[in-house]
Amino acid sequence: MSGSVYGKSFTITTWGESHGEGYGVVIDGCPAGLPIDEGQIQEYLKRRKPGQTQFSTTRKEEDKVRILSGLFEGRTTGTPISLIVFNENQRSSDYSDIASYYRPGHADYTYDMKYGFRDYRGGGRSSGRETISRVAAGAIASAILKELGISVYAYTKSIGPITIDYQNCRKEYSLTNPLSMPDPDASKKAEQYILEKHEEQDSVGGVIECIVTGMPAGIGQPVFDKLDAALSRAVMSVGAVKGVEIGDGFLAATHTGSENNDPFAYDKDKQLIKLTNHAGGILGGISDGSEIILRAAIKPTASIGRPQRTANKNNENIEIQIVGRHDPIIVPRAVVVVESMVAITLVDYLFQGMTSRLDRIKEFYSKY
Amino acid sequence: MSGSVYGKSFTITTWGESHGEGYGVVIDGCPAGLPIDEGQIQEYLKRRKPGQTQFSTTRKEEDKVRILSGLFEGRTTGTPISLIVFNENQRSSDYSDIASYYRPGHADYTYDMKYGFRDYRGGGRSSGRETISRVAAGAIASAILKELGISVYAYTKSIGPITIDYQNCRKEYSLTNPLSMPDPDASKKAEQYILEKHEEQDSVGGVIECIVTGMPAGIGQPVFDKLDAALSRAVMSVGAVKGVEIGDGFLAATHTGSENNDPFAYDKDKQLIKLTNHAGGILGGISDGSEIILRAAIKPTASIGRPQRTANKNNENIEIQIVGRHDPIIVPRAVVVVESMVAITLVDYLFQGMTSRLDRIKEFYSKY
Amino acid sequence: MSGSVYGKSFTITTWGESHGEGYGVVIDGCPAGLPIDEGQIQEYLKRRKPGQTQFSTTRKEEDKVRILSGLFEGRTTGTPISLIVFNENQRSSDYSDIASYYRPGHADYTYDMKYGFRDYRGGGRSSGRETISRVAAGAIASAILKELGISVYAYTKSIGPITIDYQNCRKEYSLTNPLSMPDPDASKKAEQYILEKHEEQDSVGGVIECIVTGMPAGIGQPVFDKLDAALSRAVMSVGAVKGVEIGDGFLAATHTGSENNDPFAYDKDKQLIKLTNHAGGILGGISDGSEIILRAAIKPTASIGRPQRTANKNNENIEIQIVGRHDPIIVPRAVVVVESMVAITLVDYLFQGMTSRLDRIKEFYSKY
Amino acid sequence: MSGSVYGKSFTITTWGESHGEGYGVVIDGCPAGLPIDEGQIQEYLKRRKPGQTQFSTTRKEEDKVRILSGLFEGRTTGTPISLIVFNENQRSSDYSDIASYYRPGHADYTYDMKYGFRDYRGGGRSSGRETISRVAAGAIASAILKELGISVYAYTKSIGPITIDYQNCRKEYSLTNPLSMPDPDASKKAEQYILEKHEEQDSVGGVIECIVTGMPAGIGQPVFDKLDAALSRAVMSVGAVKGVEIGDGFLAATHTGSENNDPFAYDKDKQLIKLTNHAGGILGGISDGSEIILRAAIKPTASIGRPQRTANKNNENIEIQIVGRHDPIIVPRAVVVVESMVAITLVDYLFQGMTSRLDRIKEFYSKY
Repeated sequence: MSGSVYGKSFTITTWGESHGEGYGVVIDGCPAGLPIDEGQIQEYLKRRKPGQTQFSTTRKEEDKVRILSGLFEGRTTGTPISLIVFNENQRSSDYSDIASYYRPGHADYTYDMKYGFRDYRGGGRSSGRETISRVAAGAIASAILKELGISVYAYTKSIGPITIDYQNCRKEYSLTNPLSMPDPDASKKAEQYILEKHEEQDSVGGVIECIVTGMPAGIGQPVFDKLDAALSRAVMSVGAVKGVEIGDGFLAATHTGSENNDPFAYDKDKQLIKLTNHAGGILGGISDGSEIILRAAIKPTASIGRPQRTANKNNENIEIQIVGRHDPIIVPRAVVVVESMVAITLVDYLFQGMTSRLDRIKEFYSKY
Repeated sequence: MSGSVYGKSFTITTWGESHGEGYGVVIDGCPAGLPIDEGQIQEYLKRRKPGQTQFSTTRKEEDKVRILSGLFEGRTTGTPISLIVFNENQRSSDYSDIASYYRPGHADYTYDMKYGFRDYRGGGRSSGRETISRVAAGAIASAILKELGISVYAYTKSIGPITIDYQNCRKEYSLTNPLSMPDPDASKKAEQYILEKHEEQDSVGGVIECIVTGMPAGIGQPVFDKLDAALSRAVMSVGAVKGVEIGDGFLAATHTGSENNDPFAYDKDKQLIKLTNHAGGILGGISDGSEIILRAAIKPTASIGRPQRTANKNNENIEIQIVGRHDPIIVPRAVVVVESMVAITLVDYLFQGMTSRLDRIKEFYSKY
Repeated sequence: MSGSVYGKSFTITTWGESHGEGYGVVIDGCPAGLPIDEGQIQEYLKRRKPGQTQFSTTRKEEDKVRILSGLFEGRTTGTPISLIVFNENQRSSDYSDIASYYRPGHADYTYDMKYGFRDYRGGGRSSGRETISRVAAGAIASAILKELGISVYAYTKSIGPITIDYQNCRKEYSLTNPLSMPDPDASKKAEQYILEKHEEQDSVGGVIECIVTGMPAGIGQPVFDKLDAALSRAVMSVGAVKGVEIGDGFLAATHTGSENNDPFAYDKDKQLIKLTNHAGGILGGISDGSEIILRAAIKPTASIGRPQRTANKNNENIEIQIVGRHDPIIVPRAVVVVESMVAITLVDYLFQGMTSRLDRIKEFYSKY
Repeated sequence: MSGSVYGKSFTITTWGESHGEGYGVVIDGCPAGLPIDEGQIQEYLKRRKPGQTQFSTTRKEEDKVRILSGLFEGRTTGTPISLIVFNENQRSSDYSDIASYYRPGHADYTYDMKYGFRDYRGGGRSSGRETISRVAAGAIASAILKELGISVYAYTKSIGPITIDYQNCRKEYSLTNPLSMPDPDASKKAEQYILEKHEEQDSVGGVIECIVTGMPAGIGQPVFDKLDAALSRAVMSVGAVKGVEIGDGFLAATHTGSENNDPFAYDKDKQLIKLTNHAGGILGGISDGSEIILRAAIKPTASIGRPQRTANKNNENIEIQIVGRHDPIIVPRAVVVVESMVAITLVDYLFQGMTSRLDRIKEFYSKY
């Protein structure tokens, strides 16, 4: 069964393995007339690139994107956009041991159970490099959202025990900060923490928060296709994510109704607003016009240097030590991945949202 | 755009409003040969029925299910199963005020924004009664899982500040306990807490945990259709859910890799097992053969008796007091809803999982 | 695997068997604000009702539709519309023999092979009565199309060897003519032909033509979701249809390019038109603004009174004689079914067609 | 809205334009363990290649396929297979005129109406070269079918007025015959006919017949996902196809029930067979175990050399003459495209067909 196709109206199909020819994505359903170029996509890819700081693997990956279809004279034509990033600098020799045993925290065992065998080189399809395809598509989705006045912004909210409060932060800072953590003091503490754990040949996790501004009210479907359900699935589909929450999330479970309900009110311009936003911008599965707020829990990197117990394919319990270049934390690099999955999902839902009212459909077709 | 159809191979379509004729579900893709009767479905519906304890609304709802199609001589025929529960005891007069204003925490405003108007009686399609359809379908999905040796069990893990540890509980107890909380001491404290808040005309939330046993390894797809992504969406699509986590979930974000990784090992019967289960039974989006563990955060009931500020349709900021029969907590009634959504999703994924290996497909078709 | 769900943006799910409780359809994705009532749907169902003329079975079926959800104060709410028609007058005793053998031209054998057993009463799910659900949904789709200025009209183009030319016909006539054949002379000849074959205990087939007027240009997708591909599937999914063609269809295969190409030209009002319409209103899978023309070949009714050879489940070759009330022709009753499937498909594609241009999406969301 | 993704369990996504970088397809849902190499795919592509005979355009297109993902050590891994064919020898200058007017029989006008503008070079996405992606995917689908003992064979049944009867033909001959017409005498007459029309600067059409052998009974769904409905859509989605029929097709509409019904019987080996096959191997939308027979009507090539009237974008009626290299007939090259679409659809339906019976699902999962 297919598992690499995502979206209903705005559909992306991804492919690629860590040590294959490269990674790619086909975007089907992008409307005609969007100006786009490889530079815009490259900007997004740059944010997930490793080797940029001491906190990520020292592998050098150029990850140069090429647009193969769907553009004419600098604008999208409405037909599928095929993007490709050829792999470079993949040394298969690094991974030869992995074939014989199951790395803890990795998908080696489950792939073997599902498929009978696996491309063990660098994790094959389960490699974190798979997110290249998501981010390339996310760049295009974000460009569409920008045209509609919507922006998606994610940042590192916590690393291990260090958590920041967004209210005290400067958003701009997160794009230059190596940890995408827009609080200089916290960021320094987090650096310290990561280095400490890295020296212990261990790894750390964290939480990413994503904030959507400019989202119109009325987007999302009742019941199964609730906007929050779609966003949860989108974000939970990213490799190391173990939890997702909207608005107050798990904290809401400990609050009372009077604490959690957001009062509606007209502001001084007679605009209807919510006085608080515990709901995180979604009520009954439909956007309410306030900021959409979402958090994702990222587990610590599974590949660690210290010795670990595991089992091999010869029915033996063994001890292994994973060598090679690995991130002590993937949270900062996953920030743009979360942004991308949110952007792709919002575009899909905005497109679907155009048919909810007969009067609007009639108006649309009366003109065209 | 459609939003009430769920599933790819095992597809359910639900319909109904709080004050319409009733609720229903059409199950398409149920295999032929499953023995099922209305009694089995009624058992599941009974678990979400209100009016059974002092902790839920005193409304009496019979919620009697009828099977309208898809059965012949007591077994499913492989064609769509249509289930219907006619509404009874719906007093529209209770809800007449609601038409003019937006209740905090409810979907009144977002429905108006999406559709231009709404069926305001009892929340219309956004009513919690919508879960009748899910649970009816869940009963059938659970029957299929049982045939495959898989069981799905959910319970109330926390209510407000009171949390229990499943290791200390008796599973059986949760089916008779009015709060579905299988720890008698904690359950009593929780009762006390709910009553207290109820007297303050307030409401409370909580956390539901769901545990799947007997799941074979190898189910789920890489990338977008990860099993955990699908379960997150399934559970997040339930009305009041604000967060979902798998295994250690948000806690994993604070752990190190060496704490979080689950070592593989052969047990004394030479079976491959995991020595711990921080991952919650899913690695790389694919089931690993251990228990699947999932938690959902349920917000406090939005309908509370105490006065609340809000806005009406006449551009006025007003104070309202919602009268009528409302649950001070919906967590216990949502337990079977979470179970149902998990069961439906697992059936869908098990069916999809049959085509991952050519040798198995060949063997299948060599016989039939 | 599910097979009774149809459509992407405008989705219908049908259920029901000939001798079950009834038939129904759930329409998900109908926009809010459409005025609809049971009378409008009943008008459509009346056109497929048997027992109205000597050319159809003498069974009396009231086929009274009830709307169970999705309406509020006479207008659609945007949520699923559940329609139900309870079965009446089904005498199971008529069908008891059928359990033991396979009727030629029917789905008895293939259902047994697929499902292992079947509801043999009246064909179960494979009964022609299944189209009740399609027509009920078609009534709603047609109401939406009417709001957009689009009409779908089908009629009986041929019965056995008698064929009519639409250019010589009065469209209105087909609604009152018992054969839906809008040429009085041909219709009389066809009546004679049917009676003749009926006396020989045989049955006849024919061709239905469907014409869509008012369709805007630009609807349909390139490649797999071509509008003609979608219409073909829609119409071929109707029970007895064995062929579908668009425009000149099979005749085009014998023409040359210069005969088949439709020249574009500006008319005296400077409107771009096509001077001919061999293409049947679709070019490259996308509507071109001219009439969409489609034909469906309907096989002769499989149930005939004369003795037939077949096989039973005891490994015996036998001769059977099917008794009971059967249509000597189903073409006239299928006219409204073809109309319905075309209407449902057009609505789905019109909705999907709203997102093909960025400028239009921007304009849409700048207002809402 | 997306239109280049096809299939539910076996999903293909295609991309590419005539004068872009190339064409490609991503196959998602191919089971693990299929041995495949570029040579096998190249064999299929060769059959649709132009420039091989005097009856197709003299353009030289190498159409060399590369496999970019989804393979490991010569076998599919179960993850997406990305295939790419880079364009060569595309001279954009040939097509510069086309920008200003609408070619009759082409999709120029409808693309403009849908997207607001178009990539006019060589038809852009609407070019016949788009079928490269389908055929590449078809090669893989055919390899799967072969493993299951199923073969798909198509051939040219008619060209203009020359029709052959398959019973008198040698199947092998069609692979070497330049017209894929396995009757030497008819083929010669057809050559003559094409040359004649070609000299008149005109083009011709024809009919392709496709025959599937080895298909197990029981595949296909009732109602909307009938196997014949799916095949119709698949084949009608190919560029120049204007009609599709199954079994006796339109001829069945002129037959009586006693002529059209296929009697069942046990043969001397006590196997249940049908004594005739007017139904074309499908009853009630489900395969009956006999040969599946399908025909597609292909219109004459739209690009012809003789002067044609049309309209340009300056509101003028003009006369044009299309220069360049064009096929006088596309039927022979479309044979492998029809085969491919049928093969892809059958694989999808065979995979879906594994879940129709509970006992088989139980048996499957009891082993794995």
